[in-house]
Amino acid sequence: MSVTKLLFTPGPLTTSRTVKEAMLRDLGSRDGEFLAIVSDIRERLLRLGCCSSPNYECVLMQGSGTFAIESVLSSVIPRDGKLLVLINGAYGRRIAQIARVNGIAVDVVEIPETREVTARDLAVHPGITHVAVVHCETTTGILNPIKEIGAAVSRAGASLIVDAMSSFGAVPLNVATCSIDYLVSSANKCIEGVPGFAFVLARREALVATEGFARSVSLDLLAQWMGLEKDGQFRFTPPTHVLLAFRQALLELEKEGGIEARAARYRENYRATVAGMRALGFEEYLHPRHQSYIITSFRYPDDPNFSFEEFYRRLNEKGCVIYPGKVSEGNCFRIGHIGQIFQSNVRDLLAAVRSTLYEMGIDLPQGVETGIADS
Amino acid sequence: MSVTKLLFTPGPLTTSRTVKEAMLRDLGSRDGEFLAIVSDIRERLLRLGCCSSPNYECVLMQGSGTFAIESVLSSVIPRDGKLLVLINGAYGRRIAQIARVNGIAVDVVEIPETREVTARDLAVHPGITHVAVVHCETTTGILNPIKEIGAAVSRAGASLIVDAMSSFGAVPLNVATCSIDYLVSSANKCIEGVPGFAFVLARREALVATEGFARSVSLDLLAQWMGLEKDGQFRFTPPTHVLLAFRQALLELEKEGGIEARAARYRENYRATVAGMRALGFEEYLHPRHQSYIITSFRYPDDPNFSFEEFYRRLNEKGCVIYPGKVSEGNCFRIGHIGQIFQSNVRDLLAAVRSTLYEMGIDLPQGVETGIADS
Repeated sequence: MSVTKLLFTPGPLTTSRTVKEAMLRDLGSRDGEFLAIVSDIRERLLRLGCCSSPNYECVLMQGSGTFAIESVLSSVIPRDGKLLVLINGAYGRRIAQIARVNGIAVDVVEIPETREVTARDLAVHPGITHVAVVHCETTTGILNPIKEIGAAVSRAGASLIVDAMSSFGAVPLNVATCSIDYLVSSANKCIEGVPGFAFVLARREALVATEGFARSVSLDLLAQWMGLEKDGQFRFTPPTHVLLAFRQALLELEKEGGIEARAARYRENYRATVAGMRALGFEEYLHPRHQSYIITSFRYPDDPNFSFEEFYRRLNEKGCVIYPGKVSEGNCFRIGHIGQIFQSNVRDLLAAVRSTLYEMGIDLPQGVETGIADS
Repeated sequence: MSVTKLLFTPGPLTTSRTVKEAMLRDLGSRDGEFLAIVSDIRERLLRLGCCSSPNYECVLMQGSGTFAIESVLSSVIPRDGKLLVLINGAYGRRIAQIARVNGIAVDVVEIPETREVTARDLAVHPGITHVAVVHCETTTGILNPIKEIGAAVSRAGASLIVDAMSSFGAVPLNVATCSIDYLVSSANKCIEGVPGFAFVLARREALVATEGFARSVSLDLLAQWMGLEKDGQFRFTPPTHVLLAFRQALLELEKEGGIEARAARYRENYRATVAGMRALGFEEYLHPRHQSYIITSFRYPDDPNFSFEEFYRRLNEKGCVIYPGKVSEGNCFRIGHIGQIFQSNVRDLLAAVRSTLYEMGIDLPQGVETGIADS
């Protein structure tokens, strides 16, 4: 018998039953109904980004979010272009790595993972044609101020690429007024679909000027867009079932009340989680001033009995899946606040953490009841 | 109300209800149960290819089959390597295109789409390090003799890359004895999973010698394999639900009786389809000697009332989805024989074709009853 676990991770997330049930159909990739769904998905994504055709275009790309990031980097930067990456976490470092492997000239500005990137960190000199930054650095949960960065990049005459993987759909963002040329996010994050594709919101004028830049066929962003525009079809087999699930997820996002309502739910999950974890003696890695409501990094407790592997396994056995840390310094684990997670699920998680600490012989702060009678 | 249609296409295909129902769970991408499923999938795929670790390794890659083809081409051919592509259809041409975009030196041998590639077509000179060929050219349905080609490539000291997209799982093939270094296929073809990833069976000795060759991060075949070997995880978010469906599809393939039994069912689908279509006046594009039982290209009827768009639409309305043609010369459409398609479904398709021809005012050969009473 299979057990249903709650996913407190940055994705794949817990999704609704109805999102998964939308996958119980086989549609042909050229079927009229399927093409109408693809078209609807593209329009809804533009609306979520507060932008629309013909100024902005939506391109869907098979694979994980990283595939779409590589699609943008390898497709929109000319051979003589140069990318500046603003880094405060592992996902920013990954952008720089992808650019280097693709033979793109790269400058980086790397700041500590504990603080946000600001426009003052920018060092855009004439050689820089593109700037890339992560919106919510899933490494820590930090939220970088895209509007301020966008304005500075725009003043410097460069193009802005934003990795909004774990924020899009839950953190309000106006792609147009933030001067974003390319925004990348994924099906299985805050829109609460299942994994299998990612998407790019692209400023049309920038996109159409990239002819001949692509370094790959599969990940060719312009060709993918032109294919979708020509006949509504993907160039190569799309994950049809995953797209059906995503369409359902978009309808459910709207029904919940859109980005604001989803943000409110996630914010409450975040508040309850942090309050509960603090009461159990845990500390966040980031100063709350920088912390988003998407995911939180917690430091390992300073207790010789703590082992992350055991902590993870015991929580897992109780049906709660958390996530390992990814910060460069300091031992952390992460708890996500996104997906089909509600207050009652957060209470279940906190109860599971409390029992697990007790089982592992880790001292709880004074005044906290274990909830388990000592024998 | 959604209508269930039968897909007579090269994929996505009609899959079983139970394969789709396997997607009704959210599993974390680092969950122990999920990692065991990924590991099981990799082992089963090797067994289907009659090869096994440590001589051969299985690498799963997010995206469509083309992504995995590009993964191999961009990851295993050194900067000073040269690829020879044996072409008798659109998928062979695509291999050459992908290699060129990746900056790989390419030679091609292009023969007519109506005949199979043979070892005599090979022109392996000392500069050629890799040879690529398609097993079943989905353009026409032709089957190329891989064992004979593999032996010749091996004698020439080159590596062989085989696109077995639409044949693997239904056309018996021994990867090892065919001297294949890299075989590529996809989740949504003859194994009857849903689309979202593809896979590579790689000769380990060849694969491990490719360090530093990759031209992409997402599509880096060696890194993907090393990631899977290190901790059983994908480097980047896998399509978890699609993988659950694929595991179920592998179990159902085994239950059906393996490749031989599936081949027998597809062969019967092919025979019944071709016999029925001939009776309705259609001609195959290929000589039957070259034709596989995977997919068949039929010529448009020589009748002024025939329009493919209308033919397609009317069949679609009757619940039968066929596929447009892709041959360079001659107007064809295609009918696939793969997926959860049985004799009764072929009869339904033939009845739908017959009614459609009647509706379109296309003359049937003498002696064929329309099945519809004239009014």
